[in-house]
Amino acid sequence: MLEGLQIERATTKKVKPEESKLGFGNYYTDHMFIMNYEEGKGWFNPRVIPYQPIVLDPAAKVFHYGQTIFEGLKAYRTKDGRVLLFRPEKNFLRMNRSNERLSVPELDPNKAVEALKQLIQVDQDWIPSEEGNSLYIRPYVIATQAQLGVAPSTEYMFIIIMSPVGAYYPEGVNPVKIYVESDYVRSVKGGVGEAKTAGNYAAGLKAQELAKDKGYTQVLWLDGVHRKYIEEVGSMNVFFKIGGVIHTPALSGSILDGITRNSIIHLLRHWGYEVEERAIEIGELYEASKQGKLEEAFGTGTAAVISPIGELNWQDEVLVINNGKTGELSQKLYDTLTGIQKGELEDPFGWMVQAAVFDSQLAK
Amino acid sequence: MLEGLQIERATTKKVKPEESKLGFGNYYTDHMFIMNYEEGKGWFNPRVIPYQPIVLDPAAKVFHYGQTIFEGLKAYRTKDGRVLLFRPEKNFLRMNRSNERLSVPELDPNKAVEALKQLIQVDQDWIPSEEGNSLYIRPYVIATQAQLGVAPSTEYMFIIIMSPVGAYYPEGVNPVKIYVESDYVRSVKGGVGEAKTAGNYAAGLKAQELAKDKGYTQVLWLDGVHRKYIEEVGSMNVFFKIGGVIHTPALSGSILDGITRNSIIHLLRHWGYEVEERAIEIGELYEASKQGKLEEAFGTGTAAVISPIGELNWQDEVLVINNGKTGELSQKLYDTLTGIQKGELEDPFGWMVQAAVFDSQLAK
Ligand SMILES: Cc1ncc(COP(=O)(O)O)c(C=O)c1O
Ligand SMILES: Cc1ncc(COP(=O)(O)O)c(C=O)c1O
Repeated sequence: MLEGLQIERATTKKVKPEESKLGFGNYYTDHMFIMNYEEGKGWFNPRVIPYQPIVLDPAAKVFHYGQTIFEGLKAYRTKDGRVLLFRPEKNFLRMNRSNERLSVPELDPNKAVEALKQLIQVDQDWIPSEEGNSLYIRPYVIATQAQLGVAPSTEYMFIIIMSPVGAYYPEGVNPVKIYVESDYVRSVKGGVGEAKTAGNYAAGLKAQELAKDKGYTQVLWLDGVHRKYIEEVGSMNVFFKIGGVIHTPALSGSILDGITRNSIIHLLRHWGYEVEERAIEIGELYEASKQGKLEEAFGTGTAAVISPIGELNWQDEVLVINNGKTGELSQKLYDTLTGIQKGELEDPFGWMVQAAVFDSQLAK
Repeated sequence: MLEGLQIERATTKKVKPEESKLGFGNYYTDHMFIMNYEEGKGWFNPRVIPYQPIVLDPAAKVFHYGQTIFEGLKAYRTKDGRVLLFRPEKNFLRMNRSNERLSVPELDPNKAVEALKQLIQVDQDWIPSEEGNSLYIRPYVIATQAQLGVAPSTEYMFIIIMSPVGAYYPEGVNPVKIYVESDYVRSVKGGVGEAKTAGNYAAGLKAQELAKDKGYTQVLWLDGVHRKYIEEVGSMNVFFKIGGVIHTPALSGSILDGITRNSIIHLLRHWGYEVEERAIEIGELYEASKQGKLEEAFGTGTAAVISPIGELNWQDEVLVINNGKTGELSQKLYDTLTGIQKGELEDPFGWMVQAAVFDSQLAK
């Protein structure tokens, strides 16, 4: 138990949504975790409280200068009544890297994991049990000082909220169509692209909307300097299987160091695949495809785990990958990683962390 | 009067701070303006209410994806009891350009100016009267929908808060020392640099802190592609007088279209100066200086109006400009623009807009 943690339980509980109608990020559990920071005092007053509005001065820095960072991870309910988290320490280590870039004070990653476990135990009846459903966890920090000077805040809140979410692919893994963005740029080396901070997502909205209007699910971002090197796919890292070898953009400073990306690289190398982390030109894919060598493409991220790419559109040149179908390797990666996450497959790397054991009544 | 505007006056008023201790962005007036937006309904319920906290769901999009934009302008109290705004319509037109880039719904600029005038009239006793002091106005929009999908919000709040601020130069215009940033990048073409949105400011904090640690007031940003073209100075546009001609970076897509910048260009051309808006290499300044041609450098922005630059440090090569003193032209521009803003000099371009006439008791 986290030292000094106060737990205030909700006196009334919300009606839980039907599991078949969850979607993503629409419902929130009965409680949240919150902790404050003040310059000179550090982080203080960790507490689990009933889910409730945040009350901020209109001059709070988060509204004006976007000094905020976040994380995203999932808890899974196993058939034998345990609650598992996937590499949670990785999220809180990455959070500190984001904090550093955004001049936000560091957090103790171990204490953050401890806080999260406590919150999950209080709200464990919110973890969905149907196949593919899970509990999405959103830790974040916001700058709360009411001061309009452009300078780091002296006050912050660290908050964790949780949302039961539906299966990303209710009808089986499904390839997406991706629009290669040539005008808008998400981030550039020297910027904040490798941090998980609000502004990166705001910067991507416009291109995403335009791609949707053209019938594409997401954009593929190119680098901001040369406008030809592949960065990410929407909010996912991206992989290509070319002539049997797996290629993924290197961590160049402008893309996120995805935890799914890292895990996929581990798994692939464990299976004996060659994985190259390097600068990949968009034109290369079209070349490889002409030569019949572009075998698979997929995005990786916490939400979808693996998202196969069936089609790319780059300046109106359409590239169909694997006949628009989910590739064999993509499917195997998806099955393996989700199997480990649900506790149904062996966990050879010790990735899963137990957050709670269900009360026998709850476990049904 | 803005149609449908509700005015709820504060029952108790705050104690006003001493004018000599205002600083920037520390105190807020008794009231604020607020208006809501919902998809399908548009903007509704415009109201002036007592200054009060904003209450938001912890899943509100502004906290996670930074979908927010803002503006900054000032109201000045004239000796003859009027309240003047400097080109306020320009701010709300720019706000709409920011809105467009961030997928935020547009506002009617005329109605926004009308709302601002109403708010100023309610809080007119907050406008400082001492030389150089003014009322800083911060209009902003935040995305409020409680939904964690990365997509534009369906709900927003438009808010105006106001802060009495002290003179930027209590002891006369004073040149600053500027550090030319070579590692960090504020924005890149194709990004959101030309929008006034929170993420741009968060992205700049780190470099600003490092420059401060080295004894510099602010950073000069270079472009993210070539890392050699001059962009902005902190949160100001920047001008150079080289061999009698004035040079300023062109609006390339990654810098803000500053209203002070625009006004300075107008004034300079009106005075017969040649003004070139173009790509300016940082190396050029060092060359011009060696040839004795770099006469003056200054930043422009609402907060300082004119901020002379006395020294640049680019990769530890120090460049002293005009012996570290305020240049003649910088001083003349400062005196002229602040004179127009305070209603003490003729306003040849019709820039000033009257927001209120003081009650005779208040005018003292
Ligand atoms: C921009 C971006 N890239 C990649 C990812 C994938 O990271 P992870 O695998 O840690 O979820 C995310 C988060 O989901 C992201 O927001
Ligand atoms: C990034 C940036 N550049 C330039 C400026 C100057 O713009 P303005 O003259 O409209 O105040 C500002 C705002 O003050 C700014 O935030």
